[in-house]
Amino acid sequence: MDSQRLFSTLPPTIEWRDGDLLLLDQTRLPHEIVVENVADVQSVWRAIRELRVRGAPAIGVAAAYGLCIAMRDSTALPIAEFRAALERQAVWLESARPTAVNLSWGLRRMLDRARATDAHDAAMLYQALVEEARRIHEEDVALCEGIGMHGMALIREGSGVLTHCNAGALATTGTGTATAPIYAAHRAGRAFKVYADETRPLLQGARLTAFELQQAGVDVTLIMDSAAASIMSQGLVDLVIVGTDRVAANGDFANKIGTLGVAIAAHHYGIPFYVACPSSTLDLHTAGGARIEIEERAAEEVTHLAGRRVAPDAIQARNPAFDVTPHALVTGFITERGIVKPPFEHALRSLFAAEGNAA
Amino acid sequence: MDSQRLFSTLPPTIEWRDGDLLLLDQTRLPHEIVVENVADVQSVWRAIRELRVRGAPAIGVAAAYGLCIAMRDSTALPIAEFRAALERQAVWLESARPTAVNLSWGLRRMLDRARATDAHDAAMLYQALVEEARRIHEEDVALCEGIGMHGMALIREGSGVLTHCNAGALATTGTGTATAPIYAAHRAGRAFKVYADETRPLLQGARLTAFELQQAGVDVTLIMDSAAASIMSQGLVDLVIVGTDRVAANGDFANKIGTLGVAIAAHHYGIPFYVACPSSTLDLHTAGGARIEIEERAAEEVTHLAGRRVAPDAIQARNPAFDVTPHALVTGFITERGIVKPPFEHALRSLFAAEGNAA
Repeated sequence: MDSQRLFSTLPPTIEWRDGDLLLLDQTRLPHEIVVENVADVQSVWRAIRELRVRGAPAIGVAAAYGLCIAMRDSTALPIAEFRAALERQAVWLESARPTAVNLSWGLRRMLDRARATDAHDAAMLYQALVEEARRIHEEDVALCEGIGMHGMALIREGSGVLTHCNAGALATTGTGTATAPIYAAHRAGRAFKVYADETRPLLQGARLTAFELQQAGVDVTLIMDSAAASIMSQGLVDLVIVGTDRVAANGDFANKIGTLGVAIAAHHYGIPFYVACPSSTLDLHTAGGARIEIEERAAEEVTHLAGRRVAPDAIQARNPAFDVTPHALVTGFITERGIVKPPFEHALRSLFAAEGNAA
Repeated sequence: MDSQRLFSTLPPTIEWRDGDLLLLDQTRLPHEIVVENVADVQSVWRAIRELRVRGAPAIGVAAAYGLCIAMRDSTALPIAEFRAALERQAVWLESARPTAVNLSWGLRRMLDRARATDAHDAAMLYQALVEEARRIHEEDVALCEGIGMHGMALIREGSGVLTHCNAGALATTGTGTATAPIYAAHRAGRAFKVYADETRPLLQGARLTAFELQQAGVDVTLIMDSAAASIMSQGLVDLVIVGTDRVAANGDFANKIGTLGVAIAAHHYGIPFYVACPSSTLDLHTAGGARIEIEERAAEEVTHLAGRRVAPDAIQARNPAFDVTPHALVTGFITERGIVKPPFEHALRSLFAAEGNAA
């Protein structure tokens, strides 16, 4: 199910319609629902740069379609010139968010497809690129479906499910990663409650997760990050599901700051803690969490709220954007191929090898 | 040491000067330093109501002086009329924050003093009231000093200390409760780092704790509540000290929402977790934490930031103002009489009996 069918009230995160690329502007949510027709490659670059499209899977899809937009008006070129321009545009698009793994992944896949295509002319090659972008899009939708199908059994009638940040439909073109089991269980008619951490500093939980679950008719309650342990202590949480930006070979994983505290509290209360993990986030080249570098973002995200300074002038502040949760705190990884249980090192490697991308 | 001597750059939280009551307006901190001369009882009531003076100990002192302000211009009354007016004004002042235990405590102590005073006229009785208010003030300063003296040995050269919310000098008329050991160790010339949780939703950590420690020259770093576990996982925290609003007979205690998560994370990493506990917060009539009622505050504190809506319209939200941390997660209570170690039930009861207020 793509995000369009999930929300009767919301346009899809990303839509390719008659050669146009339509993006739901996530920076305006939840206050305004604005769809942008990104008409040229500069607009695609800005949309990615300014987080109007965000979430690793969604960025990968946007990058693929974005490259189509970049080449749309060049189909009259000699094919060699078209190919050269294509390579240049991919380099340019990648500069929008250099550290976003899925951005370079989506672009590389498009370039690989172009190189492997024995097209007679630019128009044919352009058509092959559009087909590849559609395939990336369809795969993303299917991946979410797979995670939802495998994870939905974890959510029972009357369950309380807690999640952190937004690994939701808005971060993908399907039903999300952490949210996929939630939407699948909801579609199956199960009644349960979701607690969404607001997720300081940028409030993706309040602005996006609470919003998209509400729009889909899921019973969602917004809480502050600091209230998660208290809500757990009251017996209201039966299950935690979070997303991830990167999973190391041993099962340690990085996710939005605050995930570690949620995992420790869940462990303390004996609450199962699952990580929704599309195979694309597995990084077998990183042995364990100690090797994952943590981005430190601007102190202003902590010292200011909604553009207003709330902390003293010249105060020192730390703003780690992610934290690393050790695998010992993880009950299982919900992947599109099934739920991975400990010992993770072997199970994750098997899954990864099965993907055929161990190189 | 009172708060005046602690900060060369800040006026005292509360000052009684030549019959006037001066309050540092805490709602304007850290941006503006404004001292209000609260000229009449209506102004005292509003200052308490609108949190311009806040923190349990400071509210108790403000209430005592506030009652003096209420009676200041009535010393020409016949003494019986003065006494009747005094009782009425106390009832009125208590309505400013009906659930603030120290407010009613401070007022009751003033009324008890008045009833026990065999004054000839209103002027004499007024003088006795001012003396009692000064005594309450001095006791608060001494109580902070006691906590600081007993707790400072916990903070060693090079230590990392984490605190949550503001149980600081600004919440008292002395060096604070949770901050008293910090100021004492700082005065002793020890170099160490403090991490201050910002403390959503009202950001007392960012606005007040980070501010007052910075003003006193302590090396303080502001972090988001959700970063505490991550900072601990990096080995940066050797000690946690928090304040408390109420300690039950078995050592379970209530404090600002988020404290429980900090305690669980500290326990996970084997980091000592101390509660600064003036004897006034001991409540032997409450057997354990399950009996402590938790105030649920307006959802708007979660759905809005700095007056701007950040969450979707009509979203459900939970906003518990406090949480309860079980005594099993507490290493010790730092009181003005010494550090209390487990088993807490007996040790706390002994301390309380020694206070002579077991009735």
